[in-house]
Amino acid sequence: MSASRQSQRQAVTEFDLNRFLEESTAQVNRTLDRALPSERTRPATIHKAMRYSLFAGGKRMRPALCLAAAQACGGQIADALPLACAVECIHTYSLIHDDLPAMDNDDFRRGKPTNHKVFGEGIAVLAGDALLTQAFELAAQCRGWPRYAHQDVVLELARASGSLQLIAGQVADLEGEGRRISVADLRYIHERKTSALLCCSVRLGGMSANCTAARLKALTQFGYHVGLAFQVIDDILDVTQSSEKLGKTAGKDTAAQKATYPAMVGLEKSRKIAQQLTDKAFAALKPFKGRAVALESLAGFLLNRDC
Amino acid sequence: MSASRQSQRQAVTEFDLNRFLEESTAQVNRTLDRALPSERTRPATIHKAMRYSLFAGGKRMRPALCLAAAQACGGQIADALPLACAVECIHTYSLIHDDLPAMDNDDFRRGKPTNHKVFGEGIAVLAGDALLTQAFELAAQCRGWPRYAHQDVVLELARASGSLQLIAGQVADLEGEGRRISVADLRYIHERKTSALLCCSVRLGGMSANCTAARLKALTQFGYHVGLAFQVIDDILDVTQSSEKLGKTAGKDTAAQKATYPAMVGLEKSRKIAQQLTDKAFAALKPFKGRAVALESLAGFLLNRDC
Repeated sequence: MSASRQSQRQAVTEFDLNRFLEESTAQVNRTLDRALPSERTRPATIHKAMRYSLFAGGKRMRPALCLAAAQACGGQIADALPLACAVECIHTYSLIHDDLPAMDNDDFRRGKPTNHKVFGEGIAVLAGDALLTQAFELAAQCRGWPRYAHQDVVLELARASGSLQLIAGQVADLEGEGRRISVADLRYIHERKTSALLCCSVRLGGMSANCTAARLKALTQFGYHVGLAFQVIDDILDVTQSSEKLGKTAGKDTAAQKATYPAMVGLEKSRKIAQQLTDKAFAALKPFKGRAVALESLAGFLLNRDC
Repeated sequence: MSASRQSQRQAVTEFDLNRFLEESTAQVNRTLDRALPSERTRPATIHKAMRYSLFAGGKRMRPALCLAAAQACGGQIADALPLACAVECIHTYSLIHDDLPAMDNDDFRRGKPTNHKVFGEGIAVLAGDALLTQAFELAAQCRGWPRYAHQDVVLELARASGSLQLIAGQVADLEGEGRRISVADLRYIHERKTSALLCCSVRLGGMSANCTAARLKALTQFGYHVGLAFQVIDDILDVTQSSEKLGKTAGKDTAAQKATYPAMVGLEKSRKIAQQLTDKAFAALKPFKGRAVALESLAGFLLNRDC
């Protein structure tokens, strides 16, 4: 290990990830709470349903990645916060819709009954729609930066969430159930279902710090690989952990005959792949010369998580 | 009738609305066709589903109102087109989701089977999501104008479509089924379910022409009243026209025990209300001194339509 690499590792060790996550989660929750109409605002049902899923105890990983990227580029948290919250709204909407009976048909999420189990399918569809719309209202709070106009921010968010990325992933996932697909097809699904929005999170963080094109490229590489690793780990946890631990029904992938890395290449090789992807994410941070400790720490945390 | 009012009427008579609608529809369809991924773009299913509903023969009234407002304010069609198309994407997404079994449970729309009848519920939910997202990608094509920043445009679109407006209308409509509600409650539903997006259409047209605050206010008044009239007429047609004529199941409101103007105040009074609302819309156009012929003509057309 080179001296610089060693000092980078040292910095990561000293970095207090728990504190960073606590602080970023508190800031994100506060911003979301202010942005969303209260539970009593008419029509109360929709605002209760939106808030039910948005404040169901999500780990706020995407916002944390967004804020960490902004920090790595020397930006202000306040500039990145609306975008971090926008990404979380999109993530939550996608979970509500994916859980619907017509899709993954899940009864539990984050340890609680899914949105449609509590509010009914109609309201769950509308709560997802409302959170997706809310994401763009949040994005409209940004003013744009010298290198990135406001249009760039909206385009980034819309493309990552659109029919060629996030939604494409869910469609391919739905269509792949019970069918034999190739590892390349599985990679296609993971790139879109998970990597696209994670990548978008760090890119938006960088953009909010008016980062250089070179740094945006580095963040893109980082986000892409962390996103892929994240989904491989998710598939591993679905096989190895209990429903109680995960807060959602474990073993669903096997039951739905979904293609996953563990099913296709086995558990041991899947773990190796997750490690290799995380290493590539670490390598992408080289241009930050040790100033991306929060990002590096988050990538390590996501690799080693058990739920 | 005053001389100026008479000359305004004269201008409207001479204005060729059919030609205006033909041209605006052609431009909107071309722009939408270019903006959306082709039917063969992977995953093909979602792009087929999006295009199925978007090109199902909708009358493109909202885009026409947007372009007419831009014209009335001396703007360029090219500046307003992406916004006109964004509004149409939002309108179409809302129809796909409203038609779902968990909501209005409709089998026909624009004379064709509804999206979920052709593609299944899961894809229909995702096609709606994708069109909503596409709307903001289209909005990101605008550059902003001296009086209206790009943020203002995104905020306008997000608010009109969000949980306090368009979605609020659908929620209140769902919750009102089979219950006695007041005329004030019915007005609340109409304002949100229909008026919000129509009003947004003309406002965005005005903004794209960098209109003055006074003209934006006039357009807001116009859009609000045209939107309310539009929904009263819709309720009347649901009672008086056949399913074949409407291209959707007629008599649904009565069957679903929905509150409507005809049900609450009778057909004759409903027609009178629609006329009064349209008159208020006409009156709002006064500051344009006869240069808003397309808008005036559209309002008259919407009042007298039979499907």
